[in-house]
Amino acid sequence: MATEAWVTFETRMREIEDLSATLGLLGWDEQTYCSPKGRAPRAQHSATLAALTHERIVDPAYGDAIETLANDGAGLSEAQRAMVRLAKHDRDRSVKLPAPLVRELREQASRANAAWEEARKADDFSIWQPELERMLALKVRQAEALADGGDLYDALLDAFEPGMTVEQLDPLLEGLRADLVPFVQKVLGAPKPDTSFLKGPYDKARQEQLTLRLLRDFGFDFAAGRQDISTHPFCGGAGPRDVRMTTRYYESLEPGALLSSMHECGHGLYEQGMPDTYARTTVAHAPSLGLHESQSRFWENIIGRSHRFWEHYLPVARELFPEHLARVELDDFVRGVNAVEAGAIRVDADEVTYNLHILARYEIERELLAGKLGAADLPEAWNQRYIAYLGYTPKSDLEGVMQDIHWSWGELGYFPTYTLGNLYAAALAERMGQDLDLDELAGRGDFAPILAWLRERIHSQGSIREGDDLMREVTGRPLGHEAFMSYLTAKYGELYGL
Amino acid sequence: MATEAWVTFETRMREIEDLSATLGLLGWDEQTYCSPKGRAPRAQHSATLAALTHERIVDPAYGDAIETLANDGAGLSEAQRAMVRLAKHDRDRSVKLPAPLVRELREQASRANAAWEEARKADDFSIWQPELERMLALKVRQAEALADGGDLYDALLDAFEPGMTVEQLDPLLEGLRADLVPFVQKVLGAPKPDTSFLKGPYDKARQEQLTLRLLRDFGFDFAAGRQDISTHPFCGGAGPRDVRMTTRYYESLEPGALLSSMHECGHGLYEQGMPDTYARTTVAHAPSLGLHESQSRFWENIIGRSHRFWEHYLPVARELFPEHLARVELDDFVRGVNAVEAGAIRVDADEVTYNLHILARYEIERELLAGKLGAADLPEAWNQRYIAYLGYTPKSDLEGVMQDIHWSWGELGYFPTYTLGNLYAAALAERMGQDLDLDELAGRGDFAPILAWLRERIHSQGSIREGDDLMREVTGRPLGHEAFMSYLTAKYGELYGL
Repeated sequence: MATEAWVTFETRMREIEDLSATLGLLGWDEQTYCSPKGRAPRAQHSATLAALTHERIVDPAYGDAIETLANDGAGLSEAQRAMVRLAKHDRDRSVKLPAPLVRELREQASRANAAWEEARKADDFSIWQPELERMLALKVRQAEALADGGDLYDALLDAFEPGMTVEQLDPLLEGLRADLVPFVQKVLGAPKPDTSFLKGPYDKARQEQLTLRLLRDFGFDFAAGRQDISTHPFCGGAGPRDVRMTTRYYESLEPGALLSSMHECGHGLYEQGMPDTYARTTVAHAPSLGLHESQSRFWENIIGRSHRFWEHYLPVARELFPEHLARVELDDFVRGVNAVEAGAIRVDADEVTYNLHILARYEIERELLAGKLGAADLPEAWNQRYIAYLGYTPKSDLEGVMQDIHWSWGELGYFPTYTLGNLYAAALAERMGQDLDLDELAGRGDFAPILAWLRERIHSQGSIREGDDLMREVTGRPLGHEAFMSYLTAKYGELYGL
Repeated sequence: MATEAWVTFETRMREIEDLSATLGLLGWDEQTYCSPKGRAPRAQHSATLAALTHERIVDPAYGDAIETLANDGAGLSEAQRAMVRLAKHDRDRSVKLPAPLVRELREQASRANAAWEEARKADDFSIWQPELERMLALKVRQAEALADGGDLYDALLDAFEPGMTVEQLDPLLEGLRADLVPFVQKVLGAPKPDTSFLKGPYDKARQEQLTLRLLRDFGFDFAAGRQDISTHPFCGGAGPRDVRMTTRYYESLEPGALLSSMHECGHGLYEQGMPDTYARTTVAHAPSLGLHESQSRFWENIIGRSHRFWEHYLPVARELFPEHLARVELDDFVRGVNAVEAGAIRVDADEVTYNLHILARYEIERELLAGKLGAADLPEAWNQRYIAYLGYTPKSDLEGVMQDIHWSWGELGYFPTYTLGNLYAAALAERMGQDLDLDELAGRGDFAPILAWLRERIHSQGSIREGDDLMREVTGRPLGHEAFMSYLTAKYGELYGL
């Protein structure tokens, strides 16, 4: 009977959500306050919790309740049906994976990650290669188990961007590449703006003041979250009412805490926008990583690197850092924080070249899963693409294939969500422009209407619908790369006088 | 077969230990960095984890493995036998409690705690009384379920001080009271030392410097733990390699962070002294709260309030706070931090009067469980004892029966462990004096030999033996109050010129 099934389902779903929030807190703590000697035991605590969570997910009683409700959703609200759909999606994936494979993947992730760290220290790809090879073999086995004869890449992508397939992705990224590569060439051909004033050394305590001021102005609720420091900035924590963002302070303003804090704040605002009514349910999450990334890129780039934004905030920054900024003109500052460069490192890339870094990775991942490339071929395949897309030859594998942590952790299919985030962000901004004067609002530091717009249409929807469906509804059209390219063309055309 | 039973037992014990360490981290975070709006969901996460832990503990397969190993420990090491004994102790208690009662206790704890907070705000005992009454009724039911016809107080005490009984405790505390009450009268009759220089305002950043210096000198390993800030100082965290201590900074040096940090450090040093070989086992804990408290009281009082200690550290403190301490003489400083006062508040009490606060609570708890007192009688029963023992009449219930949080949480049987801690600490110091010149070492700020002594005899033993047995072995005699009274008599005789 459906009512009984609902009670069983809801109880277990909430339990699993609690465990997952707890894992979120353990992960945050590991990167922020965990003692060095506490790292190894922490890995054990997390592994135990992850195993327990998996055990609860694959439990047949949970599965029976899900199937009952999935087959007969009469009497369930739209949100409740979505909860069932999302739980079923996760559980179906979990039960397809044999427990020994899950354990092997987790263990190999630790080994590959350790080898990656060592290889980076020695700048020696051969240390990483055999462990990466083993990880890739496991990923093929995992994808085969999940794919049911379908596309292997789809099976992995589905973990990060449910509903998205290579059939949709390929033409989208192909179109983007066709327009982006020549545009990048054009921008890189123009004279370089001055960025020397961004180098500092900028006082770290004042950088913190500046970032906290920005987060507050954006609308981040510090009664429902905080900002701490970690080596690699991220946004995580124990759920929508306890969001943990991190940043890191360098001597330079950019690359540094400034843009990075605004980026994580975009994620944080999304999380805080989940309604209380969805608390402890599968719906209280973004529908996809791409949609999550759209929020971080929106606040970081479309707002945080805009001319009008700095019209308002450069005076604030000047007061904090007169020694570096007193004599920097607004136009020069904006050109500086938007400087485009053919660089090697994805996380330092500007918004014009960024997606070329992703395209390279996506193409390589496809070939890895298709068996056309092995681990040994990676440095060469990597460098070729950087030369072709950016005209840049990595100086070593440190600057090349060894820069990202994702593959060590077995996260294949993750990278495209970064580009989807950029495309979604531009599409949202374009649609938002019909209702709000973004430039005018940013120029006044008045973000409340912008946040309210996003809250209503995106944040408060949780994952009632799949990301792509939700975006189609909000923007009124299927996802393309056009909004992103017109945004780039207009902005950089003006900045670079093209 | 015992080997199979051991594998089952060990796997599950480690899992339960991991869950319990995770609960420790959640608890620490709740008091330090958790967002205000994250408190309610955090309570849910903790409740889910606690319920899961309970489920794993009472699982029959775990019980079978424990019984098999408890009945035939052949081939097990001493430590392994202790692991089984401790797991059995915990599990036997858990299975005796019906699940609905466990849930009622947890829910009533939340309610009683909320009522206590409200009652404190309004200084109105009647707000707390009905919820406390219900909690006391539940505690009687819990004690009856645990006691198997034995003493109800023993059944509750056993959760905090395994092996200890009222039969041992009554004569011990009776003897202490007989000697302590007249001694307190004598000290209170002497002229009061000046404590005005402790009031400050002391700069908080420098107080932090001072406490960190002391913790480092004591031997606390900051690669295996840290000190943060919380309203109520405590020592917790995620296990012996990730110890989380907290302190709080007031404008005054004392009461304030100074002694409180040394106190929590005593707990922290004990935790860090657990050997790696006991990690993730039931043995990697103190055998009792009393023994744990002995370590905090040792470092706080016997070391941290001693004359020779300040001979070394007053110059350090003077450099940090010349405006307050430049003209304070060593003797006056030591008299100030050891000032004895007939006060109302336990947590602010000096080491002479402290145990009278505990005796009052112990006697009241005994009468509550025996049905001789009800919640309504508490304010009167409380105040009577404060008048009798300390000659002090609480000005209101805020200063009286509403000062402690313990009873709201259902922690009856907890208070005596504080006094046991003081008695254990004095007994340890007396025995340590046969091997080391404590005064001389404290006077040089050289704590390594002291810590090594404690590490070898107490910390590294985990809970291989029960607390009282271990202490008997280390000190060579049963626990009495004599060492504590001679410590007090000698120290305060000199300080107060009695």
